[in-house]
Parts: sequence; C-alpha cells; structure tokens
Amino acid sequence: MSDFQLIVIGAGPGGYTAALHAAKRGLKTACVEYREAGGTCLNRGCVPTKALLHASQVYKEAQNAAAIGVTVDGVGVDLPAMFAHKNQITGKLSAGIEGLFKSAKVTYLRGRGSIPKEGVVAVTAADGTVTEYTADNILIATGSVPSMPPIKGLDLPGVLTSDEILEGAEKLYDSIVIIGGGVIGGEFATFYSDLGVKVTVVEALDRMLPTLDKDLGTGLAMALKKQGVSVFTGAMVKEIAPAEGGLTVNFETAKGPGSAFGEVVLCAIGRKPYFDGLFTGEVKAEAGKGITVNEKFATSIPGIYAIGDVSSKIQLAHVAAAQGTACVDWICDKENHMDLNLVPSCIYCRPEIAGVGMNDAQAKEAGIEVKVGKCVMGANARTMIEDPGRSFMKIIARADDHKLIGASFMCSRATDMISEIAQAIANGLTAEDLLAAMRPHPTFEEAMGEALEDLVDKLNK
Amino acid sequence: MSDFQLIVIGAGPGGYTAALHAAKRGLKTACVEYREAGGTCLNRGCVPTKALLHASQVYKEAQNAAAIGVTVDGVGVDLPAMFAHKNQITGKLSAGIEGLFKSAKVTYLRGRGSIPKEGVVAVTAADGTVTEYTADNILIATGSVPSMPPIKGLDLPGVLTSDEILEGAEKLYDSIVIIGGGVIGGEFATFYSDLGVKVTVVEALDRMLPTLDKDLGTGLAMALKKQGVSVFTGAMVKEIAPAEGGLTVNFETAKGPGSAFGEVVLCAIGRKPYFDGLFTGEVKAEAGKGITVNEKFATSIPGIYAIGDVSSKIQLAHVAAAQGTACVDWICDKENHMDLNLVPSCIYCRPEIAGVGMNDAQAKEAGIEVKVGKCVMGANARTMIEDPGRSFMKIIARADDHKLIGASFMCSRATDMISEIAQAIANGLTAEDLLAAMRPHPTFEEAMGEALEDLVDKLNK
Repeated sequence: MSDFQLIVIGAGPGGYTAALHAAKRGLKTACVEYREAGGTCLNRGCVPTKALLHASQVYKEAQNAAAIGVTVDGVGVDLPAMFAHKNQITGKLSAGIEGLFKSAKVTYLRGRGSIPKEGVVAVTAADGTVTEYTADNILIATGSVPSMPPIKGLDLPGVLTSDEILEGAEKLYDSIVIIGGGVIGGEFATFYSDLGVKVTVVEALDRMLPTLDKDLGTGLAMALKKQGVSVFTGAMVKEIAPAEGGLTVNFETAKGPGSAFGEVVLCAIGRKPYFDGLFTGEVKAEAGKGITVNEKFATSIPGIYAIGDVSSKIQLAHVAAAQGTACVDWICDKENHMDLNLVPSCIYCRPEIAGVGMNDAQAKEAGIEVKVGKCVMGANARTMIEDPGRSFMKIIARADDHKLIGASFMCSRATDMISEIAQAIANGLTAEDLLAAMRPHPTFEEAMGEALEDLVDKLNK
Repeated sequence: MSDFQLIVIGAGPGGYTAALHAAKRGLKTACVEYREAGGTCLNRGCVPTKALLHASQVYKEAQNAAAIGVTVDGVGVDLPAMFAHKNQITGKLSAGIEGLFKSAKVTYLRGRGSIPKEGVVAVTAADGTVTEYTADNILIATGSVPSMPPIKGLDLPGVLTSDEILEGAEKLYDSIVIIGGGVIGGEFATFYSDLGVKVTVVEALDRMLPTLDKDLGTGLAMALKKQGVSVFTGAMVKEIAPAEGGLTVNFETAKGPGSAFGEVVLCAIGRKPYFDGLFTGEVKAEAGKGITVNEKFATSIPGIYAIGDVSSKIQLAHVAAAQGTACVDWICDKENHMDLNLVPSCIYCRPEIAGVGMNDAQAKEAGIEVKVGKCVMGANARTMIEDPGRSFMKIIARADDHKLIGASFMCSRATDMISEIAQAIANGLTAEDLLAAMRPHPTFEEAMGEALEDLVDKLNK
C-alpha cells in the first residue's frame, strides 16, 4: 500500500483546492509546498494586487472627496504600511489554508517536491533532508513564474517582475514603465497612477487586453490615459538602457521608434510554466512550454497528472482550482459538471473589467451569427453616484436560438456580476430567460437588464 | 378619438417606465407630473439616500485609511456640499427622464393630474390653469407619502420624515432618534453613524428588517451597534416630548419603559398610498388603504389602472416599474414574462443586504421542505481586504427537486449579486445547475459558489 492515495505537488489555488477536494472524496492525501501555502495567486498575484488596489482606490477617493462633501486636509501614502497591510491579508489567508488542511486531514509536507520515479515523491526540506513518499497518484500543480523575454537590458538593476514589485519599497517611485498591457500591466498601471506615479504602458499588440473584447482594451487604455498614464500599443520593446535616475525603454512602433523613461521598469509580459528540477530521475513527463496533459489532466506517465499554470493554456487561479477539482473527480471516477471551457476573466482596474464566453469577433471567426445588446451606463444611478468613469455592458446571444454566448463588462462591480451570465451560458438560457426576474433599483446590475432588453429587441428585429 | 391612448398620472419609477414602455409599444402617451420627474425614488428616496451613503462611506474609509497605508489629515463633513452633490445627481437623472420622454415622444404634462370623470384627466398647472385631456386609458401612478402614525408629539418641531431630512441641513445633528428599523431606518442609521452622529433606532417589532430573513435583521442590528448605534427592538413608541436641545422619545418594551434623546427624530415607519384629491367628480375607484386593483392592475372603473405604491402591497421602485411595464402590456394585449411575485429587497447598509424569494421561515410556514446552504465570508479574500464587517450568504432550495427558492445575502456588493439567484429561481434552476460555470477569483461572489456547494452537500445527504 502506498503512503498516500494522492500527493499534490504545490499548494497554490490549483493544488490546495485539489488536495482539499481529494480529502473530501475520501482519498488519503498529502500536499507538498516549500514556500507559503496559497501559491502565486495568494502571495504574489491576484490577492496582494487586490489589497493594494483597494488601498489606492481609498487614496484616490479621499483626494477627490471634497466634491461629495467630505473635506480632507492632506492625503498621503505610507507605502510600508500599505504593503504591511497587504502582507497581513495574505498571511492570514495562507494560514487559513494550513488550517483547512489540518481540519480536512490533508498531510502538509513542507519542502520542495520532486518526482524521482513513477509513484514516488521526494520532499527536500529546507535543511536538505530528503524524504520519499509513495503515492498511487501524483498531481503536479507547480504553477508558473514571470516570463522574461530576450530583451537587451532586462537584467539591469531596476527592472522588476511582479514578484519583486510586490515585495514593496520604502517609498513610491516617481515613474514606472510597464512592459505589457495585459491583466498584470493594467492593474499595476491603475495602482501606481492612482497614487500619482507617472506611468507608461508599452504593449506589443495593437491594444491592451488583446485576448478580450476590443471595447475592453480600448476602454482600459482610455481610462488610464484619463489618469495621466501614457499608453503605447503596437510598440515592440527593443532595449532597456540605463539612464540618469532610472532606465529608458526603447521601442519600435509602426510610426517609428519611441522611448519612455522610468525610475523602474516592470516586466509584465506574462508567466511561464514552472517545473524546473521536478523530474529528477529517468521518468520525465512529456512537455512543451508546459507539461503536456490530455483532457483528463493525465500526463504521459501513468498515475501522474498536472493542472493549473504548469500545464494549462489559460493561467488563472480559478482555472487551476476548477481543473484540480475535475482531475480529482476523474481519479475518483466521479462526475464533474463544471464547464472548464467557460472561463471568466477579471481585471481590477477602474471601473472593473470582466468578460466570459465569446466576444463578437470570436463569434464571427467561429461563423456564429450573433446579436450584441449594449447598455452604456451614463444614466445608471449608482454609476452616476460613484463616478467610476465610462461604464458599459455588452451581452451576446446567438441569432438563431437566442441563447447567450458571452458578455463583456466594464463597470463598477463587473467582476461580481459576470457570473450571472456565465451561469446562464452554462445552463443554455436565452436572452429572454434572463429577463424573467425583476432587478432591484438602484443597482449597477440594472444595466444588465437594459443590455438584455436591447439584445432582445435586436434578436426580434 | 381621444387626445391620448394612455395618460399616466405620476412620473415616478412606475409612471415614467410605463409611459416610455407604452410609447415603445406605439401608444400615443402622456405623463402628468407636478413635481420633479422621477418621483419619490429619484428625488426623495432610493437615489438620494444612496448618494449620501456613498459620501458617508468615503468619509468613514478616509477616517480608517491609516491601517491600509493611506494617511489622511483632518477628515471633516461639509454637509451642504454633500447634499448639493446629492441634488446634482438627482437633478441630472430627473432631466434625463425628461430627455427620454422627448426622444420617445411622450407628452410631458406639467401640473397636478386628477380624474374628473371616466376617460378624462384634468391637469392643474402651477398657475391654476386647468386643462382637460381625454384618454382611452388612464394609469394612476401617484405613489406614496411617509406614514405618520398617531403618536403624541409627532407634530413637534424637530420630528422629520425622510422627505424633510433629505432636504439637508446646514450642519450635522449631534444625535438622532430613528423610529422604525426597516429599510429607510436602517439606511439613515448607517449614514448618520458613519458620520459620527449618535444614533438610536427604535423598532416596534422584535427585530430590524422584520420582513426579511432573521439573520439579516439581527446582522444589521449587530453592524449598527458596532458603529455605536443604540438599537431597541420590540419597543413601542408612546410619546415624543420636547427636551432641552431636542426631543425625548418614550417607548415601552417587554422589560419596561425606556427613552432616547435626539436633537431630531426621524419617523421612518413606512409609507402610505397617495391619491388625495385624485378623483374630483362622481367617479371614484374602489380603495382601501390604497387603490384596489386586480391582477391586471385594473381598478373598479373601466379604463383606469393603478400601479406602484398607490396600489401595491410591496412599495419598491422596481416593483412599480415592473408593474407599469406589465400593465401597459396588458393594455396592448402583449405577453409579459416577468414574474411579478419574485421581488428582490435591498438595503444599502454596511455590508449591503439583499434578499429574494423565500427565507427558511417562510418556506416552513408554507410547508415546503428546504435545505439552506451557507457561507460565512471570513476567509473570502476580497472581504478580508475591504473589511466591511461580518458577511454571509444563505441560499435555499427545495429538498425534493433541488430547485432554488430564495437567498439572503449580507456582504459587500450583495445588491448587485442577488439577481443571479433571482434569475435562477425564475428559470427553475437547481442548486447543481448554478455550479455549472466556474466563478472568478478573487471575488465576493465566490462565496455564492461555496454556499451552493454547502447546499448541494446538504441536499444529497
């Protein structure tokens, strides 16, 4: 008999969710981790950025409070306190996961996990001690690390990844150049510009958030520009060079060369699967950029599975968690009803952005005839009150059967409203179906009703 | 031929929505109003209170900002500016409705509407001029006014209704006693206690928000007490008496008499239908407390309908709007698919409260066996970051077929998340159905997934 029925390597959102789910399913489970429980998401990703963005929003609102009758003499940033608060949040959540392991009877193995051979996981503790454990099943959930493209000067001091920037600093930078206009770049641009830092975003593709509906990327760029951010799209970085008091980022656009100066440079061009030194013996799972898996998350080696950033096309915490749960269900031969292809995307800029399913360009490419319902929220009462900037909702349905297939929101609370559409898509509901219940007033989500009414009008024309 | 196919009396949320919908349906429509377009909701209810509550939240967050790294000196309240901002919002929205009337070709008749006889509406302008218009259909949407119970001293100076309190004041009161712990009372208690005013709430029934799930009312009382509010429940007001610098409210509880002092007293015990002087001739629609209508919103007089607060059991803006739309659809012989019995309730306290459908007590009373899934949000990342106070979600399904029948939320953004459950109820979805799509991380609404998982576990036990 093996030591464990399942050993999960990595306690990030994919790994810890899988381990807890396996324990609930009755498997004798262990989870290996050498850093903090919670992985990138909790410690160096989603959660700390949201903590910082909450603080920067409070700063910005305090600065603009006079217009709504709140007088403030002076507003300042205490950066060490801001990062300490962030650390307090992530520390509590990380400890919470360890608590969940304990109550679910998941054995938490502290150390670096590796796979010397089939059915064995070696755990190297901080002091170098190696302990081997046998396992019926091994689940690789080792996640990802920031990608560093082969750009000249990227190794200069002052060039940071999100990992380093989230460690904090004694004081605010005067200026920052962010390479990459995706989710990470968009959120850090929001954070620093909220706090009055001069921010430049340099994105290689033709718009920010290139994987989402075009109105979202252009909307984000507009919102950032309104905050004083310089946004260059279609701009390929050629070199980072030292300069007086910082760094110069030189890039090339269709219109010719350009450059931007920053006290520091954040490289936020994405993340790459991390499994360095994982296979220490002769057994090696097939891998490309990431570990190769089939639709059941099985690698090329029997009994070894992989989920999350290390093997997934879409690198998001909730994707990793859903894959972890589904993989455990496969292992246990249980049904899993979640649609793993329906992935919501969220960006915590101002206003928030969220999308799910197809946008109209993707539908067109797939040859699906669609109608798009839209509500621009200039007359939405809650939006007028909180004044988060230009806000809208777009909802898409198939022209033939009126079933919903996607939505793109840019508005306050977008990230908490997108699931209503996701659940509707997953359950095959039509635009008409989603108008069956009355919506409360005054809410942001009344706009969903208006977008749906516009959609139904267009579908029935 | 009549002057109009439909004349709506009252341009509140019920009336203006009905008028716009009628115009969209092709009816030649007029809408009569002697005050501002938007009615109570927009001018003296939902919208202005939300504007004030947003400002008081910014004030409170600025005061507590040091803990998250934002240093703020000298936070103060400029009450006239706060109310001016509120007026700016409501003014814009009211003008927006007039704009919608114009573009939809709804004739906006300025003056007091009355019904001298069947098929005729008289409009008395501010200068006293009376003009009569004939109409195929008349829709009464005259709304409601604050109820004033027969309590001794309620006519004393310093006793206010929400109407007067929303007119604003030069400076903050030192203290306020609020009679009534419902939605209005709960929101004003939140607003004033946010700003540091000493608040006392006196509620006659055994808990605040007595029509909603008991955890919501007790949760609100706990949240208010934590802010320093004194909350008396089961406390029947006997008398309001003048006192040095204000008023004393004397009440009776099961434990004996009590009293509370306030610079002012807000009477917030509810609202009563308003149709004083509406019927000026021999024709009078049957009425009890409100105008009596059947399920098609027809009054006892052919061709005369009534919707919203003047005739509805539930007095809410979104109910009035839904009834107005449905009534127009009846008049036009068109289908209307909205479930008018599924009414969401929202309270914009901290954290927000929202409920829809049945709570467990109501289900028990109706003899329906149910299971309740719950998520207490202490470990929800976004909740930890924003720290709005104790937060939870409860979701209820039928034990037999697992169909959802209700939900009660007390958490950040509750008011914008409740519709996901409302749409699920209206479409007959089960707890399992609502777990079909993955939820984004980190969001408040992840808790909905956890509550649903808890519910599914209980349903399958």
